[in-house]
Amino acid sequence: MESFVFHNETKIIFGRGTENRVGAETAHHASKVLLHWGQGSVERSGLIDRVKASLKAAGVSHVDLPGAQPNPRLSLVYEGIRICREEGSGFVLAVGGGSVIDSAKAIAAGVPYQGDVWDFYDGKCQPERALKVACVLTIPAAGSETSGSTVITREEGQLKRGLTCDEHLRPVFSILNPELTCTLSPKNTAIGAADIMSHVMERYFTNSREVDLSDRLCEAVMGAVRHNLPRVLAEPDNVDARADLMWTGTQAHSDLIGMGRIGDWASHIIEHELSAIYDIPHGAGLAVVFPAWMKYVYRHDLPRFAQWANRVWGVEADFNHPESMALEGIRRLEEFYKRCGLPIRLGEFGIDDARFDEMASKASGGGAHTIGSFVKLDKAAIVAILKLSV
Amino acid sequence: MESFVFHNETKIIFGRGTENRVGAETAHHASKVLLHWGQGSVERSGLIDRVKASLKAAGVSHVDLPGAQPNPRLSLVYEGIRICREEGSGFVLAVGGGSVIDSAKAIAAGVPYQGDVWDFYDGKCQPERALKVACVLTIPAAGSETSGSTVITREEGQLKRGLTCDEHLRPVFSILNPELTCTLSPKNTAIGAADIMSHVMERYFTNSREVDLSDRLCEAVMGAVRHNLPRVLAEPDNVDARADLMWTGTQAHSDLIGMGRIGDWASHIIEHELSAIYDIPHGAGLAVVFPAWMKYVYRHDLPRFAQWANRVWGVEADFNHPESMALEGIRRLEEFYKRCGLPIRLGEFGIDDARFDEMASKASGGGAHTIGSFVKLDKAAIVAILKLSV
Repeated sequence: MESFVFHNETKIIFGRGTENRVGAETAHHASKVLLHWGQGSVERSGLIDRVKASLKAAGVSHVDLPGAQPNPRLSLVYEGIRICREEGSGFVLAVGGGSVIDSAKAIAAGVPYQGDVWDFYDGKCQPERALKVACVLTIPAAGSETSGSTVITREEGQLKRGLTCDEHLRPVFSILNPELTCTLSPKNTAIGAADIMSHVMERYFTNSREVDLSDRLCEAVMGAVRHNLPRVLAEPDNVDARADLMWTGTQAHSDLIGMGRIGDWASHIIEHELSAIYDIPHGAGLAVVFPAWMKYVYRHDLPRFAQWANRVWGVEADFNHPESMALEGIRRLEEFYKRCGLPIRLGEFGIDDARFDEMASKASGGGAHTIGSFVKLDKAAIVAILKLSV
Repeated sequence: MESFVFHNETKIIFGRGTENRVGAETAHHASKVLLHWGQGSVERSGLIDRVKASLKAAGVSHVDLPGAQPNPRLSLVYEGIRICREEGSGFVLAVGGGSVIDSAKAIAAGVPYQGDVWDFYDGKCQPERALKVACVLTIPAAGSETSGSTVITREEGQLKRGLTCDEHLRPVFSILNPELTCTLSPKNTAIGAADIMSHVMERYFTNSREVDLSDRLCEAVMGAVRHNLPRVLAEPDNVDARADLMWTGTQAHSDLIGMGRIGDWASHIIEHELSAIYDIPHGAGLAVVFPAWMKYVYRHDLPRFAQWANRVWGVEADFNHPESMALEGIRRLEEFYKRCGLPIRLGEFGIDDARFDEMASKASGGGAHTIGSFVKLDKAAIVAILKLSV
């Protein structure tokens, strides 16, 4: 096991009707907030009105910034920073899924920073302070509700880049009401679940040795996705199954299950290049990229892939043929995604190989560096994985 | 799944040599601390000297309170409260296992309280504030390193009582170096592991429905105990296996794996009566009481016991005979404990039925109330379970 520091201070408030506690929780931190949300669905459902009423009852005023999109844009982040500075809002409250929360974190990091907030995403520097962020979550997917991570897309150059700052960007509280997820379409539910599954798999495939407990914790979370996603798709109004899936999304990315192991985030990086150019949903892109990545790397550690196939996908243990087990595990992952309505090939998005070289180049700093940890991938390897996704 | 609030702010610093960071971490919080430890082992190993050197290097002064015992005593807590008040120490640093940490928490709660700190343990009131507490952990067992719980024994009346106050009594940081656990005797290692296993089982056996993910997380932690305890006993100097067991102890009681479910702490309550009177180690008492509790209650939810037997102990799924599966699971738990050198019957401590009635009476408020949640146990039921422990 690797040495680590774990410190996750996010207060999680989970259960039916909990969005009505948002005002009282916010009032512990601020009297004026930037209220940030996405597109129309949280307005149509009445959620935004309920949040506003709760804030009002607690004496918290708000300025509004709707309009965050999937693959949230830098231009709106700039707008949020401007509003916070002009209005003196010292707290950002996100209502929505990972895109809205990520956008809120970017605003929170940008307000007290003199330079361009993109500097943080560009790797030039790390935030030394940030406004506090909190959220009312509506989509189980990104895990942004307890993570210190945020991913933003800069329109210029079609760049999608991530920032992690656990010290300043973990939400101070996150409200999770599984009822709010019942209106998610089957497609978006499955896309979110693919993101959840990927967060675990990025941690699971590691070169760190002697990680028995965290292996088991990762397998538990993957098992819960495998068990609950089909239930939710079959019964969209089953709040119990929705609750389990929502909590699974948080556990997948709170970082606890990954402590003591070095993850491999290459699949995420490759997917970011896809969604930066083609604006496809992140989770859907991951459903395509991850199996392709696996086909490229599985020989690197057959015992690990065999264990995964056995413990997560129920492939019978066959110690004489671990490679067959690994391939059967990957096949079952693809089959699971397909059964849940997810794409498993780029062709399903109408994406061909025209820009593979460009994406691989952007992901690898023009070929100057490798990505990943389990297996280090150079530009040629990234292209090879994209070809396996066709 | 039940609604819940989860908020665990403890910063965990895990890895070899991490005790040398204690001074720097403490300096973020205080310049003068009460340094609290137990008996001679942390002195003989040189750990206390290393901790003092680290504090000194960080400019933190300390007043010392050694002498905490297993089943920590109220009289020493009073002493610690007096010292903190007289010396103006606003922070309690525990170096040791759960007993020392629990004692430190009691001191921390008592210092700012005008009344008798026992009031909190007696259920008269809850702490409204407390000094900050931190620890350097030396024994994987109690999980007190991230919990808000503390158990203290009052010598007068042989009363052992617990207090949980997550808001004020979770340590602000906990330093976990698995190397420090290599000198634990096989007996104490196993006793600690029985405590760990019990913390998970108390959460696992629940009447809460639709708890798929947390079932799996609990099973992961139980599986890790089953896997790593025999490894550690066979190779006491295997720091990797020690690390896994240590991290397992924290996960078992950080509360995350139990969120959304109502646990049943009857076995802990019954064991407290045993160790209050006979001063046996808590984990050893649990190794005896838990299988007896199971034999008394398993018919209440055969599917749950069958699932546990299958997923944790590898008992083959036999849907026509869940009762046989349950009994086989309990048998394997006892066999596991026995193989690891743990007692599984009260006779092994020389305890007979002479004071069963007294213990059952104390546990049930003189017969006035029941204990437990999965199955509510009255005084007669507690006696019956004690009889099954003989």
